[in-house]
Amino acid sequence: MKKITGTFLDEISHDIPHQNWSREEWDRDFYFMRKIGIDTVILIRCGYKKWLTYPSKILLKSQNCYEPPVDLVRMFLELSEKHDMAFYFGLYDSGSYWHDGQQKKEVEINLAVIDEVWRFYGQSPAFCGWYLSQEVSRRFAGIVDIYSKMGYHCKAVSNHLPVLISPYIDGIKNVSSLSSQLIKEDTVSLEQHEKEWNDIMSAIHGAVDIVAFQDGHVEYEKLADYLSVNSDLAAKHGLRCWTNCESFDRDMPIKFLPIKWEKMRLKLLAAEKAGVEKAITFEFSHFMSPQSCYPQAHNLYQRYLEETRHV
Amino acid sequence: MKKITGTFLDEISHDIPHQNWSREEWDRDFYFMRKIGIDTVILIRCGYKKWLTYPSKILLKSQNCYEPPVDLVRMFLELSEKHDMAFYFGLYDSGSYWHDGQQKKEVEINLAVIDEVWRFYGQSPAFCGWYLSQEVSRRFAGIVDIYSKMGYHCKAVSNHLPVLISPYIDGIKNVSSLSSQLIKEDTVSLEQHEKEWNDIMSAIHGAVDIVAFQDGHVEYEKLADYLSVNSDLAAKHGLRCWTNCESFDRDMPIKFLPIKWEKMRLKLLAAEKAGVEKAITFEFSHFMSPQSCYPQAHNLYQRYLEETRHV
Amino acid sequence: MKKITGTFLDEISHDIPHQNWSREEWDRDFYFMRKIGIDTVILIRCGYKKWLTYPSKILLKSQNCYEPPVDLVRMFLELSEKHDMAFYFGLYDSGSYWHDGQQKKEVEINLAVIDEVWRFYGQSPAFCGWYLSQEVSRRFAGIVDIYSKMGYHCKAVSNHLPVLISPYIDGIKNVSSLSSQLIKEDTVSLEQHEKEWNDIMSAIHGAVDIVAFQDGHVEYEKLADYLSVNSDLAAKHGLRCWTNCESFDRDMPIKFLPIKWEKMRLKLLAAEKAGVEKAITFEFSHFMSPQSCYPQAHNLYQRYLEETRHV
Repeated sequence: MKKITGTFLDEISHDIPHQNWSREEWDRDFYFMRKIGIDTVILIRCGYKKWLTYPSKILLKSQNCYEPPVDLVRMFLELSEKHDMAFYFGLYDSGSYWHDGQQKKEVEINLAVIDEVWRFYGQSPAFCGWYLSQEVSRRFAGIVDIYSKMGYHCKAVSNHLPVLISPYIDGIKNVSSLSSQLIKEDTVSLEQHEKEWNDIMSAIHGAVDIVAFQDGHVEYEKLADYLSVNSDLAAKHGLRCWTNCESFDRDMPIKFLPIKWEKMRLKLLAAEKAGVEKAITFEFSHFMSPQSCYPQAHNLYQRYLEETRHV
Repeated sequence: MKKITGTFLDEISHDIPHQNWSREEWDRDFYFMRKIGIDTVILIRCGYKKWLTYPSKILLKSQNCYEPPVDLVRMFLELSEKHDMAFYFGLYDSGSYWHDGQQKKEVEINLAVIDEVWRFYGQSPAFCGWYLSQEVSRRFAGIVDIYSKMGYHCKAVSNHLPVLISPYIDGIKNVSSLSSQLIKEDTVSLEQHEKEWNDIMSAIHGAVDIVAFQDGHVEYEKLADYLSVNSDLAAKHGLRCWTNCESFDRDMPIKFLPIKWEKMRLKLLAAEKAGVEKAITFEFSHFMSPQSCYPQAHNLYQRYLEETRHV
Repeated sequence: MKKITGTFLDEISHDIPHQNWSREEWDRDFYFMRKIGIDTVILIRCGYKKWLTYPSKILLKSQNCYEPPVDLVRMFLELSEKHDMAFYFGLYDSGSYWHDGQQKKEVEINLAVIDEVWRFYGQSPAFCGWYLSQEVSRRFAGIVDIYSKMGYHCKAVSNHLPVLISPYIDGIKNVSSLSSQLIKEDTVSLEQHEKEWNDIMSAIHGAVDIVAFQDGHVEYEKLADYLSVNSDLAAKHGLRCWTNCESFDRDMPIKFLPIKWEKMRLKLLAAEKAGVEKAITFEFSHFMSPQSCYPQAHNLYQRYLEETRHV
């Protein structure tokens, strides 16, 4: 079974209710992460619409954002230093421009954010990489441009720190978290997925270093095929291939609670077999942490610990 | 930041799952409320459809209600006396008559309930006011009549105890708790809102003393404008203006879990600025209590405590 | 009030998120069950689609199921022996064949499962009965055949251990757990329900011994009538009549959290009055257990204990 060694930090979340943690809880959570072998934390996005994780002069002004009460980026970097974690910084997601044909604006704002962030936080030894928070499943118009321009700029300002993306698969479970349904009919075929991601990867390599597909949108029995295609494509285009093993359950009416351990185990076994370099999860703090507000997560942590002790 | 000094008691709830508390948990909860400065508790409704909070002879007979296992009104009054709280009694909501053109029936039943309740509980020193549980957002046909007749009768029997209403704004988040969606398109404008509530307030002043608009149905950046309009309208018509600061999160697929502290803080800052007299919340026991069944609420309580200690 | 003396074990669940318990938590849960008088546990299904509770050679091969990490059937039988519980084994539910006109295939697979299971586990003194997991509300095409063939085979291999079914009523709350709605309009009438279940029971008696209707799909005020009809029908056809008292709340937007105690109490009072032989619940471990991941369940357990101590 592939071990999980990274997790997203879901701040700002757009569909997972907040746990209202202070620095104390986050400090403890980093400790719990470390205990199961996590060495990498990835801020999912530094801002979403008008909500911010850090006092960005650029975003406060240009997007009319709300002044954040805490500088979470500073806090996460300090905790990463303390707990010896590699921190990846997730870019700003406007929640609008890149869906409305204004990809240029999405990029423009983010180029300024990258400069600002590197100026504010670049000196932290824990700042180890970048995450492009615009997540897609298909060769969406303009996505190559978005990834390329943002990725190149991240690398340019930061002496080539690695750039990560985490796309999803347009599978049967690719439905909105706001839909009451769990599945949809019109899905991508494995062949079409391969074709589109071959094009994308061929266009973005150099700007993006690591691709970590989300593993929750296809049926469990189809995951191995997708992992293998993704892994081969990455190798072909000189990208590193991770898996983003979702720790929440997409098969239940409550959207979302922690996943059944048996399901997560199946996915990690498939990832091991596919030979991916690293497994990260979305995400530890709500769905696997022993201090999560969802007690199912406490038990998932225990089950994971029991299994990995014997592996 | 405006401090919260009142809370609804969500009995009978129509969309928040029950915590199955006994007197012991409620006693402790009133203690926790007091600790953060809450001095006012408002029973959201004494009955809803066939469910009752107290053994009402009138409702058992006329509405064929279920015999309640506990007299919650008695219990809440006793706990209010013990913890030095002002208790507001919420009227009966049939869940039907006032939506079906039978406003007269809704009023008629409630006039009898008011008499009965005052006879049963009026001698309690904690009985400090009334809450009209028929919540509206617009100049809904008949609402002026409902508020006037009920409000006047409340005041008449009780030597003019204050009467409270808590309307909502027909904003972007005014969607049913049963809809899987979070927002809607067709909303009221600030001008239209002002116009309709000018009419309503002008018609109900004298029968209603306090108006506490719910603060969760508009975008955060628009709240200040609505708070200000509401506050001005209340002043103009001689009503007292409170804010009902919702402590649950309307932006998430799970309907509903505790709100993110940052959002609540923003709303209380806006309320402070608008100069409202008092902030109450819907509601402490599920969404802010350190013994809530939602652990996110425990953390919200802590965050609130930390912030208000420095204010 | 009728006391609860049995519970389903919701493995494999199809709509209740998993608690990620290990043997330790299950052992403790059987202890908690025993403490409130539960003497019967019913495995809801031994497999659902590709998910299994035990390493079934037949299902792994014919249905291409996932290899289960734990033999839950073995574990539940051992814990039943330890805690002196009667264990009922729930058959396999393909989730497809019996809905697609392939009832024959559903039966065929299950006849083989029955043989296998009896061979694997039949020697356990706790193996006390069978549960037919294909749940229906109406005289659905083929259901009589499914129940008869499966039920007879269960009894034939096991020296006539009792066979249980748990149908539901096609009432106002018979909506999918994936619908955002709580009620529907088109429901069965009491007369039609009686007519259809008269036909079904007349056809399945001999193959099925016990019928335990789910009690959550009709309005509370109508439950007594249905309980009485069901009880009379069972008596007429020589079946034993239990009630399946649902311990989750069907009236709330979150699907599902523990039920309000007042509601469960009403249903158990109605069951007592109707003279049913035994009350079981769906289900203890999520919705009534003092170690449930839903803290509301802890309180429900306490309320139940307080009430039954005085009965």
